[in-house]
Amino acid sequence: MWELDEEKLEAITIGAGILGTGGGGNPYYGKLYVRRLLREGRRVTIVSPEDVPDDALVVSVGGMGAPTIGIERIHRGDEPLAALRALEAHLGRRATHLVPGEIGGANALRPMAVAALADLPVVDGDGMGRAFPELQMDTFAIYGVPATPAALADIFHNLVVFPWLQDAVTLERYARAVTVQMGGAAGFAFPAMSGADLRRTVIPYTVTLALRLGEAVLRARREHHDPIAAALAVTGGCVLFRGKVIDVERRLAAGFARGVVRLEGLAEDRGSELRIDFQNENLIARRDGEVLAVVPDLICLVDQETAEPVTTEVVRYGLRVVVLGIPAPTLLRTPEALAVVGPQAFGYRDVVYRPLPGLYGGDRIAAERRADALRKPR
Amino acid sequence: MWELDEEKLEAITIGAGILGTGGGGNPYYGKLYVRRLLREGRRVTIVSPEDVPDDALVVSVGGMGAPTIGIERIHRGDEPLAALRALEAHLGRRATHLVPGEIGGANALRPMAVAALADLPVVDGDGMGRAFPELQMDTFAIYGVPATPAALADIFHNLVVFPWLQDAVTLERYARAVTVQMGGAAGFAFPAMSGADLRRTVIPYTVTLALRLGEAVLRARREHHDPIAAALAVTGGCVLFRGKVIDVERRLAAGFARGVVRLEGLAEDRGSELRIDFQNENLIARRDGEVLAVVPDLICLVDQETAEPVTTEVVRYGLRVVVLGIPAPTLLRTPEALAVVGPQAFGYRDVVYRPLPGLYGGDRIAAERRADALRKPR
Repeated sequence: MWELDEEKLEAITIGAGILGTGGGGNPYYGKLYVRRLLREGRRVTIVSPEDVPDDALVVSVGGMGAPTIGIERIHRGDEPLAALRALEAHLGRRATHLVPGEIGGANALRPMAVAALADLPVVDGDGMGRAFPELQMDTFAIYGVPATPAALADIFHNLVVFPWLQDAVTLERYARAVTVQMGGAAGFAFPAMSGADLRRTVIPYTVTLALRLGEAVLRARREHHDPIAAALAVTGGCVLFRGKVIDVERRLAAGFARGVVRLEGLAEDRGSELRIDFQNENLIARRDGEVLAVVPDLICLVDQETAEPVTTEVVRYGLRVVVLGIPAPTLLRTPEALAVVGPQAFGYRDVVYRPLPGLYGGDRIAAERRADALRKPR
Repeated sequence: MWELDEEKLEAITIGAGILGTGGGGNPYYGKLYVRRLLREGRRVTIVSPEDVPDDALVVSVGGMGAPTIGIERIHRGDEPLAALRALEAHLGRRATHLVPGEIGGANALRPMAVAALADLPVVDGDGMGRAFPELQMDTFAIYGVPATPAALADIFHNLVVFPWLQDAVTLERYARAVTVQMGGAAGFAFPAMSGADLRRTVIPYTVTLALRLGEAVLRARREHHDPIAAALAVTGGCVLFRGKVIDVERRLAAGFARGVVRLEGLAEDRGSELRIDFQNENLIARRDGEVLAVVPDLICLVDQETAEPVTTEVVRYGLRVVVLGIPAPTLLRTPEALAVVGPQAFGYRDVVYRPLPGLYGGDRIAAERRADALRKPR
C-alpha cells in the first residue's frame, strides 16, 4: 500500500503516456485535476491486488472516446464519479475499491481522481497493461467478468445505465454510440467485480510499472543519461526503429481516431521506411512491408532525446522519434486473449502474432513481489 | 372502461394506420401478436383518463426505430415489456397503467401487447394523437413530464436505462443512437408519470378514435358506402388531393426513413402536382408549390377505393390515392407544442402553420364524453 503524491503523479503521467502506445488519451489534463485534488488535501491510496478482500466490490472507472476529443474538449473530471454513483445506485451497493480499466494514457489518472473525490483505494493493476481502443479488449472481459451492469455519464451528468447486455462487444457498440452523442467523450464505470474476480483477471502492478517507468525517465533526464535506455530497462522493451515522421494520415470515424504514420529511417535504420497503423492506439509496425511488432505488443513512439511519449494525436511531420516495442503482459498472450486483442481482431487476417522477446514490466514487478513475499520470515 | 376483442383490434389497426400519417410503423405484425395473446385468453382493458387515480404510475410503452426496420425485421413483441421491467426495477415500483406514446401506426398496438402480457390496463389516449418521428414530440414532454428515467430493450433483451438526462431531446439523441445499434428497432418504456400528470398532458380518447375510425371504414366497405367519406366524418378531416403516385424518393439515414412522394392530380386535381416530404411521417404537402397542410396537422395517404392507409414504406409508383388532411389535436396547436412539432421544428423555416379547419376526432370524442357526463343524473 502506498500513497500518491505530486512527484509520483508526475512520474505516473509520463509512464502512462508511454504505455498508452500512441493512444489512451493525453493524461495531461488528468494530471492537473488530480494535482489540484491532492493540493486540496484529498488522498489517493494504491493497494496491491493481494490486499483486496474476496468480497470487495471493485469497479473499473475511466473515460471513453477518441483521444482527439480529450484534447479539444476539456472534461469536468468527475464524469466517471457520476457514472460510478449511477452504477452503485443500480447495484444497491457502494464500491469498496477502484481499478483502472487501462493503465495507458489518460485512463491511468481518471481512477485516481475518482479515488480522491470518493475516498476509495485504487488497485495496483489494470485490465489492459497498456491502452486499447475498444471496451471488450480488457482482461476482465476476456477472462469472464460480466460486462454489465455498466454506467456512463457525460459532462452534464446525463446518465446511462446498462443493466444487462449479452456481452462486452455489445457494450462496446451501445456505449460507443452513446459516447458519440455525448460529444465524443464519456465517463464510465464498469465492470463491477468481486475481489476474487479482480485477482483472477487483473494485470498486476501496472500502476507501479507506470510509476517506475516515469521515475526512470525523469531520473535519466535529470542525470543526463539516456531516457530511452531507462524506459527499456523498466518495461522489458527494445528499440524497433529510429526515424523521422514523414507522413501522417488521421481521421475521426465512428468515435475512433484512425490513421497511418510513416517514418523515414535515421541512424542504423537509414534507407528503410516504417509504417504504423493506428486505431486510437498503434496497432502494427511494418518496416519495408515486414511486420516488426503487432498488437497486443506495445508500439510506442517517444521523442528521441527525452523519451517523452508522442501520441497519435500530436504526431506530426518532421518529429524525430524512437519506436519502442514492449512485450505485452502474459495475460494478453493467451489464446483467449489473442482472439480479442490479437492481429485478427483488428482485421489483420494474414498477420501471425509473433511475441516480442522479453517479459512485460508489470509481470516482472509481480514476480519480484512474489519473490519478496517468499523471502519474508513468516 | 371497455375490453379489447378481435373485432375491435381489427378496427383499431386500420384507424391507427390512418392516424400514422404515413409512418408510425406498420401495425400489422402488432395486430397478429395481440390477436394471438387474446386467443390465449389474455385480456386488455381500456380505461378513460378520468378513471386513472392521481397516484397511479402510468408508463408509456412502445417501439422506436425506422418503420422500414419494423417491416424487414420481425420483433419478438415483448421488447417493450422488457423495457418496462427494467424501468420498474430502476424506480423500485410497479406500473399501474400503460399509455400509448403515439396512437399512429404500430405503437397503437404495442401497449396492448404489453397490457395483455403484464395484465395492466391501457389508458384511452396517447401523447401524439398521430405519429411523430422523434421522442420529444409528445405532449408528455411538451407539457413538462420529465423524459427520464427511461428504458430501452432490444430483441435479445439487452437493456439500457437512462436514470437522468437533461431533456427529451437528449433522450431522443441517446436513445436513437442505441436503437440504431440495436439493429434499428427497440422497445421503450418512458416516460413514467403520475395519474395527475397523465390527465394534464394526454391527448384524450385517441384509442376510441382509432377504433371508431376503423369501424367506420370497415362498415362503409361492407355496406358499399364511401370509406373515405366515413373516415373524414370520424376524424374531422378533409380531402387535400386525389392523385396517382408518380415518384418516390426514400432513404434510411440516422435511424429515420426520409424522402419525398410526388403525385399527379386526378379528377378535380388533374393538371396539378402534389409533393409530400416525410421523415418517417408525412410532414408537409405542397400543391404546385403552395402549402396545403403541414405538421402538426395530419397528412394521410389512403387508397382511393378502400381508404386503406398507404404508409411511406409501401407507397410506390402508380398507386391511386386520396390525400387526407386531418386537423391536429388542440394540445398540439399551442405555442409550446408548435415550437416542438410545428414546421420550424422540422426545418421548414419559412412555412407558417395555418391550422386545417375543423376539430380533431379525439377532441370531439372528449367533448361528447364531457357532455354525456353533464347530462347524467347525479
